[in-house]
Amino acid sequence: MSEKAVIIVHSGDMDKLCSALIVANGALSMGLEASLYFTFWGLLRLKKNGLNKGPLSKMNLLGLGKMMIKMRMKKNNVASFERLMADFKELGGKVIACEMTMELMGIKKKDLNQNLIDCYGAVGTYIQEARDASITLFI
Amino acid sequence: MSEKAVIIVHSGDMDKLCSALIVANGALSMGLEASLYFTFWGLLRLKKNGLNKGPLSKMNLLGLGKMMIKMRMKKNNVASFERLMADFKELGGKVIACEMTMELMGIKKKDLNQNLIDCYGAVGTYIQEARDASITLFI
Amino acid sequence: MSEKAVIIVHSGDMDKLCSALIVANGALSMGLEASLYFTFWGLLRLKKNGLNKGPLSKMNLLGLGKMMIKMRMKKNNVASFERLMADFKELGGKVIACEMTMELMGIKKKDLNQNLIDCYGAVGTYIQEARDASITLFI
Repeated sequence: MSEKAVIIVHSGDMDKLCSALIVANGALSMGLEASLYFTFWGLLRLKKNGLNKGPLSKMNLLGLGKMMIKMRMKKNNVASFERLMADFKELGGKVIACEMTMELMGIKKKDLNQNLIDCYGAVGTYIQEARDASITLFI
Repeated sequence: MSEKAVIIVHSGDMDKLCSALIVANGALSMGLEASLYFTFWGLLRLKKNGLNKGPLSKMNLLGLGKMMIKMRMKKNNVASFERLMADFKELGGKVIACEMTMELMGIKKKDLNQNLIDCYGAVGTYIQEARDASITLFI
Repeated sequence: MSEKAVIIVHSGDMDKLCSALIVANGALSMGLEASLYFTFWGLLRLKKNGLNKGPLSKMNLLGLGKMMIKMRMKKNNVASFERLMADFKELGGKVIACEMTMELMGIKKKDLNQNLIDCYGAVGTYIQEARDASITLFI
């Protein structure tokens, strides 16, 4: 077992994406490896401009509008989503894009923010990453 | 620690059920064991005809109707839900039905698709499966 | 690796909170350690009276009203949420409250049900707990 956190990012909800990145960056900061496997709605967030728009977030539903969240984040020095993603890459995190989702939803490589993606893979890639990981999560 | 993936299927959303089965089948294909513990809304999918109907899927909310998903799946040779479940069983996967959910929701054994179920169990069954698993997920 | 279940409680949905506590209590009953890391909507449940009110539960959406669930739980001797939480504490479970969420949502310690909380922490606290856990879940 290696010291590694391997997270499936299935959801596209901003709050969950945020949690995934905070956990992954925390793991990297403490010397673990970290891989994020983006699939289904999560993969849509890797589309060009996908981090800032997209499906209705639960945050909005609960009356915490996007603007307010961003303001609070700034005020409290909580990193924004773009920043969390940039930190993840800088700390050596690995981003895997799910090829099956691309086929299923008709997404082409050119539609994706390719500078965020380390590799394209399928479930076998995930299992290979996760089978010896110390932390496995589905978000 | 044994090479095993143990997944709690709490959600009844088709997209999440699909993810659970793809991960589980991927694990089995790569020589790991795999167990699915169906509870709450997930268990409702084990009811007779439960795989094809049921609670509003997030796929519909996002404008990807059930029909369209099925058509895309067929076109792209992505396995249907029934097929994913049949493959899981054929590859030697284990399906556990949560007895507490059955009591809570008034579900009888005769209401369930019993040829899909390997055993009925409670949280102790899950912990026994998961305590030495390499991959644990809550979906 | 120690025999431990470490669960991130991100959701505030009653059905998911219920699942988290049942798994955690099951783990404790079978001799494992268990930690619950409450963050985002999950943390709101640790507010005073937060266990009994709060965001619309999926249970309601599906026509299983809160009252009905409570009645069924009583009838079937399924423990209520308060009871599940009390059992968790009594069995030696550890509750960690996410400080980042408190900042982000403007929650003060005095707003929280402090007798439920063992410690306040950030993502580093979680990674430290989870890195050698046998069961890791995100709920």
